[in-house]
Amino acid sequence: MTRNVAVILSGCGVYDGSEIYESVLTLLRLDQNGASYQCFAPDDDQHHVVNHTNGEELQESRNMLVEAARLARGEIKPVTELSCDDFDALILPGGFGAAKNLCDFAFKGSDLTVRDDVMKSVQAFHSAGKPVGLMCIAPAMAGKLFGQGVQFTIGDDPDTAKAVEATGAEHVNCPVHDVVVDTKNKLVTTPAYMLAGSISEAASGISRLVDKVLELS
Amino acid sequence: MTRNVAVILSGCGVYDGSEIYESVLTLLRLDQNGASYQCFAPDDDQHHVVNHTNGEELQESRNMLVEAARLARGEIKPVTELSCDDFDALILPGGFGAAKNLCDFAFKGSDLTVRDDVMKSVQAFHSAGKPVGLMCIAPAMAGKLFGQGVQFTIGDDPDTAKAVEATGAEHVNCPVHDVVVDTKNKLVTTPAYMLAGSISEAASGISRLVDKVLELS
Repeated sequence: MTRNVAVILSGCGVYDGSEIYESVLTLLRLDQNGASYQCFAPDDDQHHVVNHTNGEELQESRNMLVEAARLARGEIKPVTELSCDDFDALILPGGFGAAKNLCDFAFKGSDLTVRDDVMKSVQAFHSAGKPVGLMCIAPAMAGKLFGQGVQFTIGDDPDTAKAVEATGAEHVNCPVHDVVVDTKNKLVTTPAYMLAGSISEAASGISRLVDKVLELS
Repeated sequence: MTRNVAVILSGCGVYDGSEIYESVLTLLRLDQNGASYQCFAPDDDQHHVVNHTNGEELQESRNMLVEAARLARGEIKPVTELSCDDFDALILPGGFGAAKNLCDFAFKGSDLTVRDDVMKSVQAFHSAGKPVGLMCIAPAMAGKLFGQGVQFTIGDDPDTAKAVEATGAEHVNCPVHDVVVDTKNKLVTTPAYMLAGSISEAASGISRLVDKVLELS
């Protein structure tokens, strides 16, 4: 049976959107496993636009859906059209877009708020007992999305872990090639570029996350 | 001995820059083979900017180097700083950026002109007897870059093949998982998204291209 997986993106580029390698490696592993996928993104402006050569903010605005369409070769839909009934699992790659656009963890830390459309989508999968994968900094939303005691990893950075733990989630240190699985909540997390020193290091943990998400679906 | 490979990008997104999957799969395979790499792009405006949700041209301008920096996580240099002496091989991914920004094949067909900085870089590798890999539509530049009789593939589209053959190059039909190797010129080409129906299909030919380029270096 072909599994169908929804992927929520937040733009296109590590500093203001979805981390490109994480997103592509996710789609690659899904396809290599014979799963189909559909990308989604919020149809709304990014928090800001960053010049990736020097980290400076650019005085322009870009829409998450339009930019994330680059990562999906045009095959993308607004996250408001994501129906949990059509999919077996959900994966959110990281990049600063996860912490600046999908929620505001990058600015407010443990006082973060998750976007309504993203919150509704993830909680629909959770309520339906379908697995969710979060990578890199996206697990900063774990406490808000899954509630008290949910286990997650953002790698091994104590300050980031502490800020997320303040939302009620429980951090587990994890190396780059591995995943943390909260079996009860069917949540799979991996550090990806919170720790990766190379693209193949990132691929090792992301491939394991995708495999585990499919196994739980 | 660690091989060091230069990669020339043309933006970030299939319709107006470098094809993202092709670029990422190239870097992944290089890294998996233990090769190091450095990305480059022309420091100049893209031909245009395309909304990847609907194919419409947007009334804004974007710089190839700045956009390609997204694909390189910021680690990118202007192609004018690419010295052949520092590298063992050169690879150009595809995407419309290869045919709209690096040259004007998308608009002028066999009357194409290749950008000076790209022409100089590729010809320096060629003159030094170092291998060059071109994928997807990038081999449309093969005749201009390597001269009469060079063998290349753009897959099996007869019209595109004919337009490139009019520049003096010799087309060889090739399936998506394979490569065409012109041993004399040390040029390796693969169809990638000229034929790929999925990301893992693209990965099969791109991985073979990277392996062959490294083997020839």
